[in-house]
Amino acid sequence: MANKLMFASDYQEGAHENIIRRMVDTNLISTSGYGTDEICASARDKIRKACNCPDARVEFLVGGTQTNATVIASILRPYEGVIAADSGHINVHEAGAIEYTGHKVIALPGADGKLSAETIADFLHSYEIDENNDHTVKPGMVYVSQTTEYGTLYSKSELTAISQVCRQHNIPLYLDGARLAYALACPENDITLPDLAQLCDAFYIGGTKCGALFGEAVVIPDSNLIPHFFTMIKQHGALLAKGRLLGIQFDELFSNNLYEEIGQTAISYAREITEALHKKGYKLYLNSPSNQIFFIIENNALQELSQQVEYSYIEKYDDTHSVIRFATSWATTSESVQALISIL
Amino acid sequence: MANKLMFASDYQEGAHENIIRRMVDTNLISTSGYGTDEICASARDKIRKACNCPDARVEFLVGGTQTNATVIASILRPYEGVIAADSGHINVHEAGAIEYTGHKVIALPGADGKLSAETIADFLHSYEIDENNDHTVKPGMVYVSQTTEYGTLYSKSELTAISQVCRQHNIPLYLDGARLAYALACPENDITLPDLAQLCDAFYIGGTKCGALFGEAVVIPDSNLIPHFFTMIKQHGALLAKGRLLGIQFDELFSNNLYEEIGQTAISYAREITEALHKKGYKLYLNSPSNQIFFIIENNALQELSQQVEYSYIEKYDDTHSVIRFATSWATTSESVQALISIL
Amino acid sequence: MANKLMFASDYQEGAHENIIRRMVDTNLISTSGYGTDEICASARDKIRKACNCPDARVEFLVGGTQTNATVIASILRPYEGVIAADSGHINVHEAGAIEYTGHKVIALPGADGKLSAETIADFLHSYEIDENNDHTVKPGMVYVSQTTEYGTLYSKSELTAISQVCRQHNIPLYLDGARLAYALACPENDITLPDLAQLCDAFYIGGTKCGALFGEAVVIPDSNLIPHFFTMIKQHGALLAKGRLLGIQFDELFSNNLYEEIGQTAISYAREITEALHKKGYKLYLNSPSNQIFFIIENNALQELSQQVEYSYIEKYDDTHSVIRFATSWATTSESVQALISIL
Amino acid sequence: MANKLMFASDYQEGAHENIIRRMVDTNLISTSGYGTDEICASARDKIRKACNCPDARVEFLVGGTQTNATVIASILRPYEGVIAADSGHINVHEAGAIEYTGHKVIALPGADGKLSAETIADFLHSYEIDENNDHTVKPGMVYVSQTTEYGTLYSKSELTAISQVCRQHNIPLYLDGARLAYALACPENDITLPDLAQLCDAFYIGGTKCGALFGEAVVIPDSNLIPHFFTMIKQHGALLAKGRLLGIQFDELFSNNLYEEIGQTAISYAREITEALHKKGYKLYLNSPSNQIFFIIENNALQELSQQVEYSYIEKYDDTHSVIRFATSWATTSESVQALISIL
Repeated sequence: MANKLMFASDYQEGAHENIIRRMVDTNLISTSGYGTDEICASARDKIRKACNCPDARVEFLVGGTQTNATVIASILRPYEGVIAADSGHINVHEAGAIEYTGHKVIALPGADGKLSAETIADFLHSYEIDENNDHTVKPGMVYVSQTTEYGTLYSKSELTAISQVCRQHNIPLYLDGARLAYALACPENDITLPDLAQLCDAFYIGGTKCGALFGEAVVIPDSNLIPHFFTMIKQHGALLAKGRLLGIQFDELFSNNLYEEIGQTAISYAREITEALHKKGYKLYLNSPSNQIFFIIENNALQELSQQVEYSYIEKYDDTHSVIRFATSWATTSESVQALISIL
Repeated sequence: MANKLMFASDYQEGAHENIIRRMVDTNLISTSGYGTDEICASARDKIRKACNCPDARVEFLVGGTQTNATVIASILRPYEGVIAADSGHINVHEAGAIEYTGHKVIALPGADGKLSAETIADFLHSYEIDENNDHTVKPGMVYVSQTTEYGTLYSKSELTAISQVCRQHNIPLYLDGARLAYALACPENDITLPDLAQLCDAFYIGGTKCGALFGEAVVIPDSNLIPHFFTMIKQHGALLAKGRLLGIQFDELFSNNLYEEIGQTAISYAREITEALHKKGYKLYLNSPSNQIFFIIENNALQELSQQVEYSYIEKYDDTHSVIRFATSWATTSESVQALISIL
Repeated sequence: MANKLMFASDYQEGAHENIIRRMVDTNLISTSGYGTDEICASARDKIRKACNCPDARVEFLVGGTQTNATVIASILRPYEGVIAADSGHINVHEAGAIEYTGHKVIALPGADGKLSAETIADFLHSYEIDENNDHTVKPGMVYVSQTTEYGTLYSKSELTAISQVCRQHNIPLYLDGARLAYALACPENDITLPDLAQLCDAFYIGGTKCGALFGEAVVIPDSNLIPHFFTMIKQHGALLAKGRLLGIQFDELFSNNLYEEIGQTAISYAREITEALHKKGYKLYLNSPSNQIFFIIENNALQELSQQVEYSYIEKYDDTHSVIRFATSWATTSESVQALISIL
Repeated sequence: MANKLMFASDYQEGAHENIIRRMVDTNLISTSGYGTDEICASARDKIRKACNCPDARVEFLVGGTQTNATVIASILRPYEGVIAADSGHINVHEAGAIEYTGHKVIALPGADGKLSAETIADFLHSYEIDENNDHTVKPGMVYVSQTTEYGTLYSKSELTAISQVCRQHNIPLYLDGARLAYALACPENDITLPDLAQLCDAFYIGGTKCGALFGEAVVIPDSNLIPHFFTMIKQHGALLAKGRLLGIQFDELFSNNLYEEIGQTAISYAREITEALHKKGYKLYLNSPSNQIFFIIENNALQELSQQVEYSYIEKYDDTHSVIRFATSWATTSESVQALISIL
């Protein structure tokens, strides 16, 4: 099927072998539905333990856009919107799923995909002193992602500063962890799962891009934050009938430290590729420490490349160059990386 | 895990062995995402063939509520609502997912879960002659399900009559086939997949309850009915990143006649149980030809039963009796049926 | 303009002369906008006084459907719906405005337009004991109207019983008073404005049908019930820029007892017409004590009548008869009533 | 009431005397409701004539935010958003009313409140060439306003260019004319009502700020553009029961050229004030040809000014200066202008 080298994204393969094996082993047992089964219970416990947050509410949803829309619409009141970086996934690549629930995405300028505490604080301050702010959307929560759309990382001090701003202004902080395993696997990363549970009011641990077939685990440290969350999940069409499939996957991801390790090869392969790009004179578009590599390529070279490699086209750089992205994943093999490097 | 006999629903096990095997076999191949891969293409083709509808649009979504909300919200205009039987899943058990998209469910009285062509025609007529109908919700489509919430079946003549009413009034007919495999497996059934493609403007072939891990295949005979449907699916959080997982499942379900056969044992087991109920003097709540059995049980007997069997509680019948439901499925075993019968 | 006798509705004329005079007198003074002016402040005070509810929040909106949608959508959480009689205005004649805000109207059977406390209590009880109620819409408030769609009245004991049910179940009670002046003017009525403020969590005092050009005054006894209500009003497009126009109208309606008296002639004329109908052998469709008269008329007689009188067509009664409605109003004249009677 | 000079906005007084007189004269006639009366019919005809567009659909709504939300939500499909300047009223000052209907406001950078055809064309082009655009909100219409939020004017050539871009890309152009009378009264203006009817697919002629008590007239040159628009208006709570009140106002505004002349004194007073600001050394924030004057004032001077004059605070300019706005209107008097100038 894959005649080309596949570096277009990190959701091109199935799941980690442990997950597949467990899926096979449990296939014919009978359990209750909707995540009320024992496997989900076990997975929830493991996640609570990994987050050092024994009272957290943990819910499993199927995909990222769905999770973002469900969580955000469940937290906001109708007169509120969600602050996000202008490059944020919810602002750009979710087909207006947030607005479809009735809420404005308040896009603030980011830097390399990241919002700064100062940008957020300035905006909240200007809202609060505006005499006519009852004619405008109230900023009701903050959305960030780790890693960001550009594969960059918040440091612990940066995320702490954002968290403090949110708490001063009494608005929840929500973190999209679609690629959280790759963040955790970065040597530069200094934010742990327990840190997230302390700094965020809600976050999700991404499965789809991090070794699962599908699935995202929403963690809500204060389990009372969202009343009737189960019904909201159902209302959003996000409640999986055979919920145990999500339990199985996260139970495996949170056994034997798998989630914290599964991104490691992807990170080292990404660095190998980055180094090769440097050596061969390509210019990086930005410095990403994680599993996504954004770089600039001459258009003729790109056309050649596209015969052999699948990549993500990002944008026009200038009249003769483009920005493209490679993504490595838990499933990337050494062979394909070597093959890619030799093509470059 | 299951110490009790599990007859509460038809989504308590994993998937048919063919599906699991294919999932394992394809696990590490790389494909593009979002249903643009070759396995999905193959599954689409097989479904088009099975429906004798070569130009149909086929899209794979994850679950039933999600599919109903996405299809209905994509077809209706804001001033329109959807007609359904008062017992219809969208009216009762989807947590208001349809209304959440801004549309009224226009609930009309059903009989044993079925709407009649006459009921629909009368309502449409009364809407059309109402001089003030521009102050009311316009009926914009009709929703039925096969089998219904009560496990009953539309006959071909009944569905044809409904289809004719819809076409006379120029509103689409949509059929929810969450349990379609069980309908197809009923000896009484005279509606084929090609019939559905001729009579309906949209319908979905249920996977979740019919042998898949999850997944519903939406079939739209006139492929132009819903512009930008892909974006709507994304907006509803219903687009699976690793879309091939849906392709794999439907490709298997539509190989070797599996989908048309997979419900057969469930139907014969259901009849065995029904017969046993008769013999032992239980009264049926209604006559269902498919895999759901609704019957009346004395409350003390129920309490005893609940020690050994999982069932669905439906409603209070009178002060000393209740209505409960057993469901069989493709995964039900002869042993469990015999055990259940001996308990009854 | 009106060559026919106009009995189709109670919003066919302008406003009470006091209102028009005040509008003229204040036309060129300058005030701040959006209801922040002194006239609105005065009107709010008068309403609080009339309701014996000094801490109530009072907001002025433009029309009834708008008011219902804004209040209901501001009170409900996304997973909640509003209980109403099946004949309720929000269920039938608001073009799906409530559903458009994402909420289900939970229609329960009424009697002559009225919900009983028992019907509501039974429904709430069945919701609460349903083990699967997290898959259904949570009943989040109750909507009633005084007078009802059929011109009937809740008695104080009936409304008290409903209020008690709501408080036992901790859900707000909201009363639509589009025709409240006509209720207050009925000799049978025993519910005062202070009663409403005690029994309801929100209600509106109708202006449009009760002597104003337009306008409805929302009264919320617990002023903290709806946070950011001003912003919600703006978001619903229900914030009048020249808010003082609403202040002017309610300031006049609540001067010199005008609101409590303005419906009186309408009621006595309605009774005169009802008596005439009786005498002439017409059969009433139901007994309405207020300004709406529903009766049955033979279709040939109706066609004749329609040459000289405007009425509201309600529905087909049988193959040869129809149900129609006459409405009187504060502006109905003795001459027109006599003319109508002589035509009947 | 107004002890201060009132220059905060252009909706601080009632209505032009012709309108008030007509309101008084017609007060007790009986008409049908919801804009189906003869006065509305007459007003519609006059507007069609003024726009040289005999087949246009004309509907009267109550206020600006309401009109924008109703028109935009009626035109867009769920997967579409509306392009607007970042400073556009719908993006900033409507409390998220557009997003509340489920649609994204796609904010593009404006200059002095204006969007350029080039900015729009570039954005549409980048959308169209984006291979992943089915994951993003489709731009479905363009929103501009005349005059803009900053009182600036589109020239005929500018609006023509925008219109051409829209038609090339097959998306409707909608113009918000809340302050259209002030645009028409500007000597620099070269866009007539017939031009608007040729260049736009929908626009509204503002009443509220232009001499009416309230009311906006939506003009849709192709009367079939929005099916069931009446029901949509009702659903949005934007249908005035006594619709004739809107008919009366627009019938007067479109008699004797009133609408095209009513802004003239406001414009000449605004220029007088601007000239005085220049003379006295104030710096304009931007050059606005219409009835809004944005300028920079030292904070101590502002505090003094605020004792005697009501103005709109716009934003902080620097640590010691602010940007404020004066607005003149059809009701502004020579005396107040002279008084203001002597204070400055």
